[in-house]
Amino acid sequence: VTGEAPALVLHHIGFVVADIVQAAPAFARSFAAAWDGCVYQDPHQNVKVTFLSAGDSRIELVEPAGEDSPVLRFLREKGGGLHHACYEVADLEGTMREMKARGCLIARRPRPATAFGGRRIAWMLTAEKLLVELLESAPENPSV
Amino acid sequence: VTGEAPALVLHHIGFVVADIVQAAPAFARSFAAAWDGCVYQDPHQNVKVTFLSAGDSRIELVEPAGEDSPVLRFLREKGGGLHHACYEVADLEGTMREMKARGCLIARRPRPATAFGGRRIAWMLTAEKLLVELLESAPENPSV
Repeated sequence: VTGEAPALVLHHIGFVVADIVQAAPAFARSFAAAWDGCVYQDPHQNVKVTFLSAGDSRIELVEPAGEDSPVLRFLREKGGGLHHACYEVADLEGTMREMKARGCLIARRPRPATAFGGRRIAWMLTAEKLLVELLESAPENPSV
Repeated sequence: VTGEAPALVLHHIGFVVADIVQAAPAFARSFAAAWDGCVYQDPHQNVKVTFLSAGDSRIELVEPAGEDSPVLRFLREKGGGLHHACYEVADLEGTMREMKARGCLIARRPRPATAFGGRRIAWMLTAEKLLVELLESAPENPSV
């Protein structure tokens, strides 16, 4: 990573499912992980999400919440599955600007996310169609 | 992670593309990463692969090599995209056994992989259809 490259710290990979409550126990079992049962219902994002550990990394399960959910089309057309990669960044707007200058599209501008205590997330789409979630670092506990 | 849980260390996320040589520069540009241009052609796996850095983590690009490539159907039916999560494990057979006992299917038994210097990989499918690549740790340099 050069001085110009945004400092991206992988936070989780996102996997779309039809029903979190049905899917999460099976995921947890596969990875011998504990699931805390906490499902966030996020009115800003129109999704429900929950987190599981797979060894040293996180998997986020995402369920559409309502007919205007941004993941509903992915669920219907692709049947769910791996959906995005989420990176934590210290400078949300700066990283978006940098990625846009590098050919990425802004898929969704910053909004607060319930699952991250109100920290903002934004969505970028790379030229090759990898959907990237950017999560701003917690100011009091920056991890980048 | 309890004593029973397999020690999974995320190695990369895999993204299927039609053409690595076309896609890799765009990926590298999106993440302000350098691409070393090294494309592994793997006769054991019937794929071509290359690796890119996205901040602190890796993205593997996977291109089908031949009509019997295991990723060809994914490319044709889903149009490519996020495909698998790869975890490094110290005990390949033990982890497979453990995951199988936990409801995962063995999608492909261990074979050497050119991209990892002949270290073996195996493929598991979780009950909820997450495709998991397991990569055995290098004996001389275990990372788990």
